Amino acid sequence: MSDRGADVLRPAPHPVPDSAPQAARALVGVHAEALAQAIEALGTRSWHSRYPESPSPRVYGEGAADAGREAFEGRLTRHFEELADQPATDAWLGAEVSPYGPSLRVEYPHQQVDGLLAAAAAAMGPWRDAGAEVRAAVCLDALDRIHAGSFEMAHAVMHTTGQPFVMAFQAAGPHAQDRGLEAIAHALLEQRRMPASVVWEKPGRGEPVRLAKEYRIVPRGVALVIGCNTFPTWNSYPGLFASLATGNAVVVKPHPRAVLPLALTVSAIRESLRANGFEPDLVTLAVEADGEGLARTLALHPAVALVDYTGGADFGSWLQSQAATPARSVFAEKSGVNSVVLDSTDDLAGLLANLAFSFCLYSGQMCTTPQNVLVPRAGIQTDQGRLSFDEVAARLAGAVRDLTADDVKAVELLGATVNDAVRASAAGLAELATACDGQVVLESRLVQHPGYPDAVVRAPGVVSLDVSATSAYERECFGPVVLVVATDSTEQSLKRFVETTREHGAMTAAVYSTSEAVLEGAREAAMNAGVALSENLTGQVYVNQTTAFSDLHGTGANPAANAAYVDAAFVASRFRVVTTRRQL
Amino acid sequence: MSDRGADVLRPAPHPVPDSAPQAARALVGVHAEALAQAIEALGTRSWHSRYPESPSPRVYGEGAADAGREAFEGRLTRHFEELADQPATDAWLGAEVSPYGPSLRVEYPHQQVDGLLAAAAAAMGPWRDAGAEVRAAVCLDALDRIHAGSFEMAHAVMHTTGQPFVMAFQAAGPHAQDRGLEAIAHALLEQRRMPASVVWEKPGRGEPVRLAKEYRIVPRGVALVIGCNTFPTWNSYPGLFASLATGNAVVVKPHPRAVLPLALTVSAIRESLRANGFEPDLVTLAVEADGEGLARTLALHPAVALVDYTGGADFGSWLQSQAATPARSVFAEKSGVNSVVLDSTDDLAGLLANLAFSFCLYSGQMCTTPQNVLVPRAGIQTDQGRLSFDEVAARLAGAVRDLTADDVKAVELLGATVNDAVRASAAGLAELATACDGQVVLESRLVQHPGYPDAVVRAPGVVSLDVSATSAYERECFGPVVLVVATDSTEQSLKRFVETTREHGAMTAAVYSTSEAVLEGAREAAMNAGVALSENLTGQVYVNQTTAFSDLHGTGANPAANAAYVDAAFVASRFRVVTTRRQL
Repeated sequence: MSDRGADVLRPAPHPVPDSAPQAARALVGVHAEALAQAIEALGTRSWHSRYPESPSPRVYGEGAADAGREAFEGRLTRHFEELADQPATDAWLGAEVSPYGPSLRVEYPHQQVDGLLAAAAAAMGPWRDAGAEVRAAVCLDALDRIHAGSFEMAHAVMHTTGQPFVMAFQAAGPHAQDRGLEAIAHALLEQRRMPASVVWEKPGRGEPVRLAKEYRIVPRGVALVIGCNTFPTWNSYPGLFASLATGNAVVVKPHPRAVLPLALTVSAIRESLRANGFEPDLVTLAVEADGEGLARTLALHPAVALVDYTGGADFGSWLQSQAATPARSVFAEKSGVNSVVLDSTDDLAGLLANLAFSFCLYSGQMCTTPQNVLVPRAGIQTDQGRLSFDEVAARLAGAVRDLTADDVKAVELLGATVNDAVRASAAGLAELATACDGQVVLESRLVQHPGYPDAVVRAPGVVSLDVSATSAYERECFGPVVLVVATDSTEQSLKRFVETTREHGAMTAAVYSTSEAVLEGAREAAMNAGVALSENLTGQVYVNQTTAFSDLHGTGANPAANAAYVDAAFVASRFRVVTTRRQL
Repeated sequence: MSDRGADVLRPAPHPVPDSAPQAARALVGVHAEALAQAIEALGTRSWHSRYPESPSPRVYGEGAADAGREAFEGRLTRHFEELADQPATDAWLGAEVSPYGPSLRVEYPHQQVDGLLAAAAAAMGPWRDAGAEVRAAVCLDALDRIHAGSFEMAHAVMHTTGQPFVMAFQAAGPHAQDRGLEAIAHALLEQRRMPASVVWEKPGRGEPVRLAKEYRIVPRGVALVIGCNTFPTWNSYPGLFASLATGNAVVVKPHPRAVLPLALTVSAIRESLRANGFEPDLVTLAVEADGEGLARTLALHPAVALVDYTGGADFGSWLQSQAATPARSVFAEKSGVNSVVLDSTDDLAGLLANLAFSFCLYSGQMCTTPQNVLVPRAGIQTDQGRLSFDEVAARLAGAVRDLTADDVKAVELLGATVNDAVRASAAGLAELATACDGQVVLESRLVQHPGYPDAVVRAPGVVSLDVSATSAYERECFGPVVLVVATDSTEQSLKRFVETTREHGAMTAAVYSTSEAVLEGAREAAMNAGVALSENLTGQVYVNQTTAFSDLHGTGANPAANAAYVDAAFVASRFRVVTTRRQL
């Protein structure tokens, strides 16, 4: 079979306009190879990373960790002065309290909305005219500046989200930055697919008809990125950089309890824009006063054409029904209910270690943490013999207990609970078990943090219940709660997995089986449910982790999210193409 | 600058599953080269066509035209038997009346909605599993079958839309088919961009971590295509084939007055599906009984995940506000107001001939026909000297009058008026002029059709009015009505063009000027308005015509349409990708 069409489709870089700022034009050459490699990785889905995930001094240098901590500490109790030049400032405010205890007492400029959006809109012209290549290079420069502050960012994220330090470093630093690069590369590729110009020749009887055509990329408008409390950078960078790289201005509205990570982000991007000859107001931070409802106001503003949101289902659904219009697209990642189907295993120890880690990491406060473990009532076959349903539940509980037995080690995995809702659900397992006629297999243990006495740290608890108790497991129970659900059979497990996911959404799913037929059935179920599936993970890869350039985060095919990080559908509608044509 | 990233991105064809039907698998090789060429054309935007636009016997064979006419005539007064096997049929109905006079008296099966959608949904599994390559090849086979009936289609479209015959042949036949191929090629390319699988290796200190990953394309669900009266095939094929090629089932709901063209289309596709081993109910026709409101019912049905619509703004806006949900995407092309900015010309004769043709073609009943001609009150400079505003209006009117002076020739350009609203607005120019304090420069002339005495054929009329009479020209006046608007200056013309387009939408725009500065200003205006611009067209290319593979139809950047035929944004969200991964 010919693949000529595939071979000749080589979207070439666009020309770089002479009118673009000199500094920005110079960046195009600097970053061309990095962007080419990133685009290549998008096509192969093979491993690719620009930003090393190890916080080791061998990678980041001897003084980097200390310098980052000091930089973070230097932010506390002050105005965030780098954002003092944002437009339409009318107050300074901030009320972040670390889940580990301390109040940050950092204050940020508060903006008058119309003035902010007017400045954002006014900044777009030269950014649009600079073209796709310049925008990608400047975005990558901005990411590199963010990267340079990765240790400072780690502390900022730790003390706004409650993530443990190493996770905060990795997830909010290099992993988020790689997701940002992925979005930039995807955006560049999408724009390159439309050539800048063509001389079109239609053959005819005499001279061909010839037209000169130009294809101009135009932005949608101002993009709004609404950050979440738990993953302020990782969940914001895809939308932020996809919108910015396609020519839009971006207003970043952080969660009131996780402002600092996005203030650092916005300030680094503004620095890059300024250094490269663009108006910094292309990217601004919009913090909200108590009870202001700023996200709503911004999302309904006529200047706003794109909204990216991560957070709870209620506000997400409101955005999708009220803010989405023909002229305004909403990309939303909401809550979901993630399932694990246990059928059988030839590596019980690996299964238990792997799942226990997934349950415990950040106390289950990830949108990707498994919640419902579906196990046949008759138990499962393992390499350690057949286990009854109760034994499975007990072994899962035991694995969690063992992994979190030592307080000092446990806090480095669990982090701190982020809010009272999480704490309440962890503390309410007995009540939950009573309500659903289930059993508490493991209480959620209160762990004492050795360094932060005010931190509320919780190890996951485990409740077993019957498949008939749908109201207990057909909703998200965000935080350190594992529900082990007794089903009639693996077949019913798969059926319930599909139904729960289709109705309530899911970001992840996992299956354990030694049977190829069951695995094939699970793949079919995953396709029908519209969720990514991890099979028989027993090593150092976890169901709740996705990797930029290879794994999609979300699918857009179930209610948990209407888009995926990062596929073409996430990027392609963020810009439009205006053709001009004339006869030659 | 390196373009390595661009060079190495060669989305290879996906593997063809052994489980796909043998006949369909064989088609993959047959159509590989054609699809490769089409994909290449998408990347270059250069001229490309599979289906010859000339109805000449030298191209289509000596008997083709007669055979097509006879086939059409053989349809009349009968049941459309090829669709008798559609599921859930509960009646036969049809009430098409040709705009040229005769009643067609063709009857089509009417379906019970739940049964129809259940059959459509049930047909999707094997179609999904056959993969992108098989789907593209079968879609192209279906298009070729449609193409074989191009002469029959021409008569069917002529006698449902009122298009003149040659236009009906070209626009509803080869041009629509090329748009279909464009959608198929784009859909295939989008799907290929995600590889079928990868072995992912993450380097580590010891052995690398290796995962086998598969990326499975899953459809969104059942797609609904809502056809329009004036371009039942051309406006339906992009959505129809984009949805089908990405794995969705498609229900085609034709306009009650233009059923036959889509019945022929659906029947050819069903024939192809059947011949290639798939369930024909993947594509069905859903005609509606009088007052049934079927489009609404279908658009709100939970099985429907994609809606493509072309038609009036009212129902389009209803779809966008009521049918669009996070789980259901709506692509809508609604009405708009197309502008021409006249500033100056060095080829007045060419300008007049070109615009007159654009006004007259199909009596202005194209969503792309220019309506508002914005001319400075002080007149314009031309190669025939300076013309006053009134002279410009008179010359435009004269060009229309001359082009349509001979009834016998005129009808081959004008066709017939499609409905009473068009007839009323053509007949009401005096009223319009009075209401807006303007002048009738040319009445819309009633043309006598030599062959169809009952046809209402109208040549365009011309009304001149002042820019202050906004209520007259800031709305679509569908049909043979040209409004020549006196502005303060070209600067104001461009400003009004931008404002009208941003507020009321437009599918096309044109500018005539000898000044590079004005043309540059017009390009900037077109970008701000979000509409494609044709500059100084004076030959055989017309502002109301776009060409598959090169010109986008619509932009998605103004209210007339939220998508373009065919760009990545039009295709990419019609499928989702479900990843499965396991450790190696």
